[in-house]
Amino acid sequence: MKTYSLCLLASALAAAPLASAPPLLTDGMRADVASLVASGKATDGAYETIRELLEAAGPRLAGSPGDALAVAWGVRALKARGFVNVHAEPVTAPHWERGDESGELLLPIPLKLSLCALGGSVGTAPEGVEADVVEATSLEGVDALGEKAKGKIVLIWKVMERASEGSGYGATVPIRSSGASRAAKVGALAVVIRSVGTSDARFPHTGALNYTEGVAKIPAAALAVNDADLLHSYLSKGMRVRLRMKLGARTLPDVQTANVVGEIPGREKPGEIVLVGGHLDSWDLGMGALDDGAGCGIAIESARLVGKLPARPRRTIRVVLFANEENGLAGGRAYAKAHADELGRHVAAVETDSGAGRVRGFAWSAGPATEPLMKELGAALAPSGLGEVRKGGGGADISPMRAAGVPMFSPVQDSSRYFDIHHTADDTFDKIDREELNTGVAAIAALLYTLAETETPIEKIPEAERERRRR
Amino acid sequence: MKTYSLCLLASALAAAPLASAPPLLTDGMRADVASLVASGKATDGAYETIRELLEAAGPRLAGSPGDALAVAWGVRALKARGFVNVHAEPVTAPHWERGDESGELLLPIPLKLSLCALGGSVGTAPEGVEADVVEATSLEGVDALGEKAKGKIVLIWKVMERASEGSGYGATVPIRSSGASRAAKVGALAVVIRSVGTSDARFPHTGALNYTEGVAKIPAAALAVNDADLLHSYLSKGMRVRLRMKLGARTLPDVQTANVVGEIPGREKPGEIVLVGGHLDSWDLGMGALDDGAGCGIAIESARLVGKLPARPRRTIRVVLFANEENGLAGGRAYAKAHADELGRHVAAVETDSGAGRVRGFAWSAGPATEPLMKELGAALAPSGLGEVRKGGGGADISPMRAAGVPMFSPVQDSSRYFDIHHTADDTFDKIDREELNTGVAAIAALLYTLAETETPIEKIPEAERERRRR
Repeated sequence: MKTYSLCLLASALAAAPLASAPPLLTDGMRADVASLVASGKATDGAYETIRELLEAAGPRLAGSPGDALAVAWGVRALKARGFVNVHAEPVTAPHWERGDESGELLLPIPLKLSLCALGGSVGTAPEGVEADVVEATSLEGVDALGEKAKGKIVLIWKVMERASEGSGYGATVPIRSSGASRAAKVGALAVVIRSVGTSDARFPHTGALNYTEGVAKIPAAALAVNDADLLHSYLSKGMRVRLRMKLGARTLPDVQTANVVGEIPGREKPGEIVLVGGHLDSWDLGMGALDDGAGCGIAIESARLVGKLPARPRRTIRVVLFANEENGLAGGRAYAKAHADELGRHVAAVETDSGAGRVRGFAWSAGPATEPLMKELGAALAPSGLGEVRKGGGGADISPMRAAGVPMFSPVQDSSRYFDIHHTADDTFDKIDREELNTGVAAIAALLYTLAETETPIEKIPEAERERRRR
Repeated sequence: MKTYSLCLLASALAAAPLASAPPLLTDGMRADVASLVASGKATDGAYETIRELLEAAGPRLAGSPGDALAVAWGVRALKARGFVNVHAEPVTAPHWERGDESGELLLPIPLKLSLCALGGSVGTAPEGVEADVVEATSLEGVDALGEKAKGKIVLIWKVMERASEGSGYGATVPIRSSGASRAAKVGALAVVIRSVGTSDARFPHTGALNYTEGVAKIPAAALAVNDADLLHSYLSKGMRVRLRMKLGARTLPDVQTANVVGEIPGREKPGEIVLVGGHLDSWDLGMGALDDGAGCGIAIESARLVGKLPARPRRTIRVVLFANEENGLAGGRAYAKAHADELGRHVAAVETDSGAGRVRGFAWSAGPATEPLMKELGAALAPSGLGEVRKGGGGADISPMRAAGVPMFSPVQDSSRYFDIHHTADDTFDKIDREELNTGVAAIAALLYTLAETETPIEKIPEAERERRRR
């Protein structure tokens, strides 16, 4: 009994300061938040913006014709939607080209394989690489192959698990980024991985690899999961598996591309910036609808809706469509460098790069003093299904600003289907559901507005938490 | 009141003969049917048979290496499962090869297209065919293009509707079979169609076309629905659309392939035959898992289970794995010709070629005297969810036997997802659900047994209904 009473007392005391403090969201702000949620859920703007980008540019890997078309589109699109200070900021980016590619199983049966080079891979000789296949199921398993890998093609067969938050990705993607160099260390001629993806559709999933300095660069490709599973089945029975693949991939001299920027000027503190962005580039195989046409659409439309309020918010909202996220992060790095002097005035940076799935709230990374505001906003959004607020916001493009302590935000989003499509030829406009997409517009519009309007300071990320993190 | 009483009376009279007649399914037969349903639902046999075929042969279009591997596998597999009189019967079949192929959008943006030649298409010149695109939404619309089609590539954009029984296929497939010749008649250089399929996955769907005698043969390809919809969107806005495609397709001299046959001999009337079959060939793009590995697996396993009963049924069950269904029906025609003399002793022919979806019963085509037996069997199967019995059974491979009046049967099956996968590279083993597949094994085993055991004559298809029909 005594314990129980003490608990009640402690609880009452803890709640007291909150209960007695004036709300951080004023009645006027609450009304604006409600209005933005309603207009976000009803808009056609994000959906049509994505369609427009895809139809104007198509796939848009840095250095490709689509990349240049996308930058031109971005400038036009932001101007057409009423943003000001619209301009393109130069970015020097890697230029990798896929070229023609093919793969075929030679033993135990002849079969055309569904594969694609990983981004950044070297090509094969024109006649291709042909060898027997040995298998590992992890990077440590590749190391353990030792002599057995010499002169062979190594298959890394690891299954990515489906999860609502896409957590299976982090657990599997190291085979993509590090598999080639690990296999090269044990003498392999090439590496093929089971695609890092969650669907059983027969598309290979591309994505960047990283070659380790000082290790031979060997060609690396992803097999569609079905093809990888077939090879795995043969190898599990002790059968000889032999394949040939030709990759026309090559890295060309760096290219000039651009981040596209536009603003809704703040009414009182135009020098203070709430940044929101997605990335304008995409992998080359698909149309970049989910990755990251959706993020561009959400960023642009949510900012536009805030700008349409009867009174613009206090601070400037700056939309940034980042270049070259997929293949080097040159856009995010260039932004942080070019704007180093004003990062102290970046009140917040919001990144939208997790597809078009249903948004349930947002994640935040900032100093602890920011928590009460986040909680109030979460409570205000809860009746709309957007109130799931948690710590841990961030994103690849905004990560270079982390060292300056810029508070970071991102949607809390259902990614359970995202990795079905991610980095495949199947990333096309039809994969976007307008109603689900608009949950993101509603949540991000409310968040942008609150960050740009609040008189509560948004505390910088504490020094101890500023080490760079990439998603 | 009077009308009501008369109805009751008529109803009582109509029911009387059925009520007083002895049941056509004896107690022993009912017990065997129940046992087959139970073993069909529990077996691993069909699933593992399909896996074995796919791993042994891969894609298996007539004339391909996989086709020869499949015939060899079929003979091995039937022997290994205890069938007797196992042999391959020669079939002369068309030999069409896809070769390399590619397509690219040139205007309004550069884009690699997802397309494939339709089966039987002529190739393009090595440099490809390049032209502006004009659109029609039906074959009549192609005719109506008239002069506008001259020197152009015609896009036929027609959406296939999803339906449980796959009825959208029949409504759409004429654009595939006849589109090329219709477009050639109005002077088109080539034709591209929106894939005849129901999924939004970015796979083109191949399938056979038929060139009309006396009309120029022009190259014909299917675009993935996403790519077709993109072109449609541009054209709907009045934009100029230009594309280039290269098709390496060609028809080579006819090849020798084979129908694979094996039997479970009847214990009393071995000369009377109940045939069950699927087709061993497949299109070249995928692994032919649903089309028609599944049908082969169901046919083989259901017959095997009947053969495992304590007493084999009265009549012979003959499994036929037909050659070349996809690209000419040479296997079905060769069978009917080679066995013309014994078609009179074909009591029934059952075809399984609608994928691996859930089976709810079976359809039958026979004389009306057969109806009471069908109804009794349906009633016996109803508690197992397999009792949906209706008229209209048949199939492509067995259709050449229709002229001889051979009664025809096929599963009543959920095909609502079948046309997502059908004729694409995505037709792979992982698309098969064992539990759904086994509903087919259970239903077909019960049907085969009943047809092979019953003392009730199975009446031939009436003369008036024997005109050939293809599915």
